[in-house]
Amino acid sequence: MKLGRVVGTVVSTAKDEKIDGLKLYVVRDLSMEITDRDSFVVAADSVNAGIGEVVLYASGSSARQTKQTDGRPIDACIMAIVDQIDIDNRLVFDKGRD
Amino acid sequence: MKLGRVVGTVVSTAKDEKIDGLKLYVVRDLSMEITDRDSFVVAADSVNAGIGEVVLYASGSSARQTKQTDGRPIDACIMAIVDQIDIDNRLVFDKGRD
Amino acid sequence: MKLGRVVGTVVSTAKDEKIDGLKLYVVRDLSMEITDRDSFVVAADSVNAGIGEVVLYASGSSARQTKQTDGRPIDACIMAIVDQIDIDNRLVFDKGRD
Amino acid sequence: MKLGRVVGTVVSTAKDEKIDGLKLYVVRDLSMEITDRDSFVVAADSVNAGIGEVVLYASGSSARQTKQTDGRPIDACIMAIVDQIDIDNRLVFDKGRD
Amino acid sequence: MKLGRVVGTVVSTAKDEKIDGLKLYVVRDLSMEITDRDSFVVAADSVNAGIGEVVLYASGSSARQTKQTDGRPIDACIMAIVDQIDIDNRLVFDKGRD
Repeated sequence: MKLGRVVGTVVSTAKDEKIDGLKLYVVRDLSMEITDRDSFVVAADSVNAGIGEVVLYASGSSARQTKQTDGRPIDACIMAIVDQIDIDNRLVFDKGRD
Repeated sequence: MKLGRVVGTVVSTAKDEKIDGLKLYVVRDLSMEITDRDSFVVAADSVNAGIGEVVLYASGSSARQTKQTDGRPIDACIMAIVDQIDIDNRLVFDKGRD
Repeated sequence: MKLGRVVGTVVSTAKDEKIDGLKLYVVRDLSMEITDRDSFVVAADSVNAGIGEVVLYASGSSARQTKQTDGRPIDACIMAIVDQIDIDNRLVFDKGRD
Repeated sequence: MKLGRVVGTVVSTAKDEKIDGLKLYVVRDLSMEITDRDSFVVAADSVNAGIGEVVLYASGSSARQTKQTDGRPIDACIMAIVDQIDIDNRLVFDKGRD
Repeated sequence: MKLGRVVGTVVSTAKDEKIDGLKLYVVRDLSMEITDRDSFVVAADSVNAGIGEVVLYASGSSARQTKQTDGRPIDACIMAIVDQIDIDNRLVFDKGRD
């Protein structure tokens, strides 16, 4: 999975019928130090993530293994909201703190 | 999904029989600020997108989850026409305006 | 799909039995201006493409959706020979001309 | 598969129900000389890997071919702990030594 | 498929039970001029390739379409040993010669 931050939303009325009802978020990739990267993805959401939250998203066919995305033309899906990240025994991200 | 702009069309007569009838668009990748990137993809279309429109496209096996692309040798498919994109509470793209 | 030019062939005698009989082409990626890129792929062929032709190829599981590649360990397949590419209302490639 | 080193952990309480019980590791990509690369992935674990260990991880649908990850929205999975790597007849990594 | 050279081996005892018995090779990517690239992959082998040989490998789900890799958490598989590569009507690689 990749680590990202939810930074925005995409609104679409003309879309494939199979994605009706899915919320589409702009997710910006993050480094291990939780800094912004240039790359981003538009992802569906299976966990009621909110703007600003640090999340994990799955890509490819794995993005279709949630109840919300099964059988849909979705290649990226937020499947976890991150509480804490620990790297080299250092807490680099704490949702309650950061 | 990736964000792109439909910039052109590809015409092919000698093609795999399974892609007969599919419209093939050249889609240029866009940044979060809706500026052109160098990368592009040739994508099928499940939503009657038109030249110049900002769209989302799905890649890989997810591109085959629409009625139009099911079971076909297609690895990129436009599955939404974008109306609005909001990033950090700022409207960075509005189809009616831009 | 990606846009490429067929530039060469690969000959292999010791190969997985499932790819017996498949022609394997070296396909060089092209820019939107139909200039060579550094990247390339070795692709199977479902459309009888020839050296020098501009083609589209599908990657990943989508490359296995043709009659020739179904169920085979093939992750790239030429599925269309390009006749014309039109970008921003300009004919950037015409097989009869270029 | 890619070669990486387990450098951290990700804790998440709000997550897709299908990933309950899976341990999620931060895995940093390694060069052939076993030096750190900038890129990383968050991967599930099917082999009880520990922090600091050099591992192999599989990506995409292949990451779902283990008993632990089958049918789950997981696109990266550690499936081997590396004991030794030999390149050009030189032992570049030995778990017992390095 | 990608073009690579088998440069090394990976030994692992603690691994997912489904990859037992598979030989894992370090494969370095090659340019069209058969020069080394920085990138590499660890791949399973379905063709009894040897160190030093130029090979093709398939990635993703296509890597699981061989008898040896079916249903296993393997995302890269050597599926051909290359004898000859011809580019722009020039023999750039000949196994008997190079």
